[in-house]
Amino acid sequence: MRVGVFDSGVGGLSVVKSLLEHQLFESIIYFGDTARVPYGVKDKNTIVRYSLEALEFFKNFEIDMLIVACNSVSAYAIQELRVNAPFKVIGVIEPGVLAVQNALKHKDTNILILGTRATIASQRYAHLLQNCGYNNLTSLAPSLFVPIVEEGIFEGALLQSAMEHYFKDLVTPDAIILGCTHFPLLASAIQNYFPNSLLIHSGEAIVEHLRVHCDFAKQSNATKLQLFASENPENLKATAKKWLGDLFL
Amino acid sequence: MRVGVFDSGVGGLSVVKSLLEHQLFESIIYFGDTARVPYGVKDKNTIVRYSLEALEFFKNFEIDMLIVACNSVSAYAIQELRVNAPFKVIGVIEPGVLAVQNALKHKDTNILILGTRATIASQRYAHLLQNCGYNNLTSLAPSLFVPIVEEGIFEGALLQSAMEHYFKDLVTPDAIILGCTHFPLLASAIQNYFPNSLLIHSGEAIVEHLRVHCDFAKQSNATKLQLFASENPENLKATAKKWLGDLFL
Repeated sequence: MRVGVFDSGVGGLSVVKSLLEHQLFESIIYFGDTARVPYGVKDKNTIVRYSLEALEFFKNFEIDMLIVACNSVSAYAIQELRVNAPFKVIGVIEPGVLAVQNALKHKDTNILILGTRATIASQRYAHLLQNCGYNNLTSLAPSLFVPIVEEGIFEGALLQSAMEHYFKDLVTPDAIILGCTHFPLLASAIQNYFPNSLLIHSGEAIVEHLRVHCDFAKQSNATKLQLFASENPENLKATAKKWLGDLFL
Repeated sequence: MRVGVFDSGVGGLSVVKSLLEHQLFESIIYFGDTARVPYGVKDKNTIVRYSLEALEFFKNFEIDMLIVACNSVSAYAIQELRVNAPFKVIGVIEPGVLAVQNALKHKDTNILILGTRATIASQRYAHLLQNCGYNNLTSLAPSLFVPIVEEGIFEGALLQSAMEHYFKDLVTPDAIILGCTHFPLLASAIQNYFPNSLLIHSGEAIVEHLRVHCDFAKQSNATKLQLFASENPENLKATAKKWLGDLFL
């Protein structure tokens, strides 16, 4: 099975990492819209327009499925993509909600939803979780987390200060949804800040979702990964080498 | 005289503020490419392409001059704009260098150049200052300052921590060039961090440059300001009301 992975930038490689580790696919075509990243601060119309342009790119390849790694696209453009795509389109939000359902049986669980401004404004996570009966929800857009990750900062005083800034007035959550592809890179810092909270990670959630919902033939050998970016593809490849290590052939 | 002001986002309003205070123009057409902000993390080709697209927009108006408020555009696309524009194009970097020359007579003055990654990588400030004989230069791209300003943070622990992160290993500079339209909003915090350094502000520098280099008819009444954005114009107008106050009619 051949799959496309779409993200606004390099962050979606955190999802690719999970896909590679589980060898679910024969080949992966990754496209990061690095010339127009970040999507998370843009409005719905712009995100939809950019997403449909990216869809045209994926039509160049014979893929069986498109995985939208970007939470902001999953929140705002998934319906438009599904209507216009000649292949199956899977977003990252439903799998995240499924992961919550699998992990947290008590409906009064206190869940903190972290995402970009666009993802939080869409209320997609909140609505889906409420439909499943979860009502003790807090939504937060720690907007500086994305540029902090892009600055290569994963620990230390500045990140601590940023977490204080966003988290200091919160009740300790039972679970935290890392609702942006960048946030798994801050997972250990966030886990240190909230040592007893369960972190929900998009990449792992989507693998679980695919295993449950999709038919896979016996998995073959190593997955072939092709990387494309709308700007600075060298940087995407360098990041892939760093994040994916030996998984990146 | 009618003038256009081009910026990648809302930051150029800090330049507009200076223009309005000095009532240099009959009318100002402002365009912020808010759908594609920030430019400062993009590469040269992309910045040139976006700038030429913005130029097409300005051709809709009968302007006499285009002021490029964005340092990243001034650093990378000013020649391309000048070649293609049917009106005079003024960037923000030469005026900044002129302001340094006016304020700092000693050539061994220790100057800290702050800018976006694109502006710093272009080395435009450094080359022009070196041509003027200044050689004690430090260039720095404190990439988190732009998102910090866009988060509405102008003081406090997180900003202090970010300044520590970027400034802690620096010798105290004699002068600091605020080489990004967002940085004047952090001027008082930066001044507190380096109480004895002279801050060079783009908006003021460009007004001084215009007074010296351009012929102005007797200035008339209040300047008419028209605001355009490629996305979310309401936000641009709200920011203008907040930053410009009574100057925004």
